[in-house]
Amino acid sequence: MDDMHPSEQAMGEAIKIAEGAESSGNYPVGSIVIGGRMTVIGAGFTELHSQPDPTAHAEILALRRACKAVNSRYLPGYFLYTTLEPCPMCTSAAIWAKVEGIVYGASLEDAFDFAGRSGSDHSWRRINIKSSYVVARGAPVLTLHERFMRDECLKLV
Amino acid sequence: MDDMHPSEQAMGEAIKIAEGAESSGNYPVGSIVIGGRMTVIGAGFTELHSQPDPTAHAEILALRRACKAVNSRYLPGYFLYTTLEPCPMCTSAAIWAKVEGIVYGASLEDAFDFAGRSGSDHSWRRINIKSSYVVARGAPVLTLHERFMRDECLKLV
Repeated sequence: MDDMHPSEQAMGEAIKIAEGAESSGNYPVGSIVIGGRMTVIGAGFTELHSQPDPTAHAEILALRRACKAVNSRYLPGYFLYTTLEPCPMCTSAAIWAKVEGIVYGASLEDAFDFAGRSGSDHSWRRINIKSSYVVARGAPVLTLHERFMRDECLKLV
Repeated sequence: MDDMHPSEQAMGEAIKIAEGAESSGNYPVGSIVIGGRMTVIGAGFTELHSQPDPTAHAEILALRRACKAVNSRYLPGYFLYTTLEPCPMCTSAAIWAKVEGIVYGASLEDAFDFAGRSGSDHSWRRINIKSSYVVARGAPVLTLHERFMRDECLKLV
């Protein structure tokens, strides 16, 4: 099953989810949890501007919805796709959920660059820890695909 | 207000919450969010065995409930108390919530020691990153009180 990943089709789905965020006034970050046969079991965009919940990042919402869908807190064999590098909260949640791997598009550095250029406060990205750092200190160590379809994901911000 | 913290009364409340976890078959970790005049606005124990949600750590539940209570994703002036050192997911969530500070009891090393002695898998504690590491890389930097009432908190596990 791992041969499927990273998959352009899967990241395309995450990008579509991200595009839906803007109409609701939320940050254009999209995430999906996808299994064998390319079945999406959970999806979400960042809902920080829709509900008073500091944990409402796209990845957390996708993971929680996926777990609810399969009625388990573990997601072995599933991959988390996300258009922006997951923060330590979201990377850790993926480790706790025992996903098979994570695929992300634009990077933490891209987000910092954007925040610097735009003068935006982007306070949701001010923990300076790479996803790879967290993954490396988690057990078991997940598969991590970095900067996959980065150019397409960068167009979102 | 910071003069109040760390507070034995507040950690006592978190310990009481943790004690309630065992009857529901959950890990005895308790957390509260507490503000001025020692008002608790959110509390929780780890509910990993009650619901299919890998993010259902005591700290996340306490933070989400506190945010709901004040209808904001930010908790300035509030402290998060937790009986066990928060993992990177929970520490990051506290940073995103902009709490004033974190006070924890037993440490990550204590949890690893316990897991090693008991042969328990304690898979919820297998990310080897200290809370202080995450706090130091977050902006703004929160106040962190470590190993406060550690002996009392160790009695829980």
